[in-house]
Amino acid sequence: MADISPLAPGRFPDMPVVSGVRLAASACGIKYQDRIDLMLAEFAHGTTAAGVFTKSMTASAPVVICREHLKGGHAGALLVNSGNANAFTGRAGDEAAQRIIEAVADLFPCRPSTVFVSSTGVIGEPLDADKMIGGLPVLRESLSENTWEDAAKAIMTTDTFPKGATRTADIGGGTPVTINGIAKGSGMIAPDMATMLAYVATDAAIPAEVLQAVLEPAVERSFNSITVDSDTSTSDTLMLFATGAGPDHPEITSAADALLGDFTAKLEDLLLDLAHQVVRDGEGATKFITVTVTGAEDDRAARRIGLSIANSPLVKTAVAGEDANWGRIVMAVGKAGERADRDQLVIKIGGVTITEDGKRVDGYDEVPVAAHMKGSEILIEVDVGVDEGGGSATVWTCDLTHGYISINADYRS
Amino acid sequence: MADISPLAPGRFPDMPVVSGVRLAASACGIKYQDRIDLMLAEFAHGTTAAGVFTKSMTASAPVVICREHLKGGHAGALLVNSGNANAFTGRAGDEAAQRIIEAVADLFPCRPSTVFVSSTGVIGEPLDADKMIGGLPVLRESLSENTWEDAAKAIMTTDTFPKGATRTADIGGGTPVTINGIAKGSGMIAPDMATMLAYVATDAAIPAEVLQAVLEPAVERSFNSITVDSDTSTSDTLMLFATGAGPDHPEITSAADALLGDFTAKLEDLLLDLAHQVVRDGEGATKFITVTVTGAEDDRAARRIGLSIANSPLVKTAVAGEDANWGRIVMAVGKAGERADRDQLVIKIGGVTITEDGKRVDGYDEVPVAAHMKGSEILIEVDVGVDEGGGSATVWTCDLTHGYISINADYRS
Repeated sequence: MADISPLAPGRFPDMPVVSGVRLAASACGIKYQDRIDLMLAEFAHGTTAAGVFTKSMTASAPVVICREHLKGGHAGALLVNSGNANAFTGRAGDEAAQRIIEAVADLFPCRPSTVFVSSTGVIGEPLDADKMIGGLPVLRESLSENTWEDAAKAIMTTDTFPKGATRTADIGGGTPVTINGIAKGSGMIAPDMATMLAYVATDAAIPAEVLQAVLEPAVERSFNSITVDSDTSTSDTLMLFATGAGPDHPEITSAADALLGDFTAKLEDLLLDLAHQVVRDGEGATKFITVTVTGAEDDRAARRIGLSIANSPLVKTAVAGEDANWGRIVMAVGKAGERADRDQLVIKIGGVTITEDGKRVDGYDEVPVAAHMKGSEILIEVDVGVDEGGGSATVWTCDLTHGYISINADYRS
Repeated sequence: MADISPLAPGRFPDMPVVSGVRLAASACGIKYQDRIDLMLAEFAHGTTAAGVFTKSMTASAPVVICREHLKGGHAGALLVNSGNANAFTGRAGDEAAQRIIEAVADLFPCRPSTVFVSSTGVIGEPLDADKMIGGLPVLRESLSENTWEDAAKAIMTTDTFPKGATRTADIGGGTPVTINGIAKGSGMIAPDMATMLAYVATDAAIPAEVLQAVLEPAVERSFNSITVDSDTSTSDTLMLFATGAGPDHPEITSAADALLGDFTAKLEDLLLDLAHQVVRDGEGATKFITVTVTGAEDDRAARRIGLSIANSPLVKTAVAGEDANWGRIVMAVGKAGERADRDQLVIKIGGVTITEDGKRVDGYDEVPVAAHMKGSEILIEVDVGVDEGGGSATVWTCDLTHGYISINADYRS
């Protein structure tokens, strides 16, 4: 196992109970022995579900199934394994996933169409459904409301630490509702091809279509605003479950309902927390980089420019080298293809203005910038100077180091 | 200076004379002393010009000027310096370029609007126009028809070898015409931000608009089909000059003229040769990778899928690690966003079929594939299985190694 990332948070958070959610995790021996690799979640009757999945054109069998099951809007159970992605496994992969779903449905019992599955790990290897099905009865016996950390561990692949976050939110006064989330991801990548998975659950009562409407913009500003290496997994999955088993609150019928304001904000904050943890576990990462873009044509353009900077191998290696190489930032702004006024470009690093009016500021002092580059939290701010543009965005990434190459190249299958 | 790339060709080719072109190179001390860094080309009266430039939204001053001058269709002279990109230098950069152009125009004399300039090297530093202007009289004295290799050396930055290529082409029988080309590039990138520059000249007589029409599709299939690290320079420039000073041939009035068939083919072959040399000098490169894509919706889709594979850090590190990790190729096909049939995908490495019908072939033997991965020329073939799709493309790249990180990160400004 790799050392824990130098950017990891101190410890796994204390996760409160989310009424209506019970979890279990076990070591099923899918790829390694004695490593927790299977997690089961049981949801209270009436739990609603929403989800966002990879845009890959070669999505894995579990992703295809989850998209289909989400149409019903309800969740009875979730089963996630690490060690094998069940991706690119042909018809046998579809059949394995379906057999597992039937077995989980029989276990509770619940409808097969309310069972969600994810797999992460090696790609192209047949998934041993029998091994997983055989482990289900024991898993069910150990279901508990307090197993969030083990569940987070069960979905890890090359992650160096388990990722969790919790928030409470107010919906119309009274007792706050709880939102818990776990995630895995360490780059989109790993020797065996990893993936980003995240599962969030709340005890609030929110209809499925409202849940989906709340989730999508929050994902745009969190998980869709991070990048480790620009590679997209075939299995990326983010699901949100609402059990309705928590404290009473006024009925919610629309995502635009002002009553949902605090919930929406807390959900986005939790997603951002998890997304940042994924970046902090980026393969080989030694620096956490925040890129803000302002003055763009619109927010979408701003995010594209931000991701162009955050995905640039040149920018990422410069940060790894603690080099305030702002010329590479100019390059990355230019290659994004979005409107930018070269002669108005403002670039700041660590809060220090380096360029204005399309050139380096007079008397630029690199000393404070060089000091900032030596830290582990790097801030790059760019204003692209499009006059009428109020577009802005923030994206996050990590640096590109020898560690990344070692993890991904110094390896033989 | 870095060691010569292990993928470099044996030696610089013997370049014949291109009638109507004289070249000179000198060490002008722009960034380093005693290093050839300035090259001047003089073109015969009536020389036509075509060009293709970076699509960057933050293009350098010389690129903006070249685009403008190209509207006239004629070339009198070309001046290229290395050591300073004159990019992101504000109004002072524009003025420096204009002063240099006036000085070159006075030298011969020729019209300023027929003078083309390029600069490559460090970005954001003021360009010392006086130093370059002071060097012009000596340069002019040393103009010669046999200076192609020195000219290729003068435009190098982090390149480890000079790049040249030559072809002869038949236009309507009689004595063949000559096409010579030089290029620089070593990734889009370097400690000081490098660039791709290429200059091609022929002694054929071809009108400017025909030259442009011939050049653009040839660039699509050559320089626009290579990638080292997906980063785009602010200064990328490719120019084609036709002096008309060579052997007589029938008059050319259209790019569609059958008489131009051989010329067009030889030009594309020469551009491909130069483009491959750029990849072979990719920073840290140890493997030259050819990616062919077939069965796509159209050629454009095929090239996007090919570039998605060729730009994937995952695929490139796998090749560096000599690991036939075909799962990463599946991922890269998926993330391209173009139509692909997961259940029809065929992947071959080194000619060996690894996947068919959306899964690994039965009895797949990795031994010959592993042997292929140990070589320095890697072939990846993908058929994305879109039924009606006859789209195909070939792209070229290099692997992503510790050498790349060392060149770009183990450096302080």
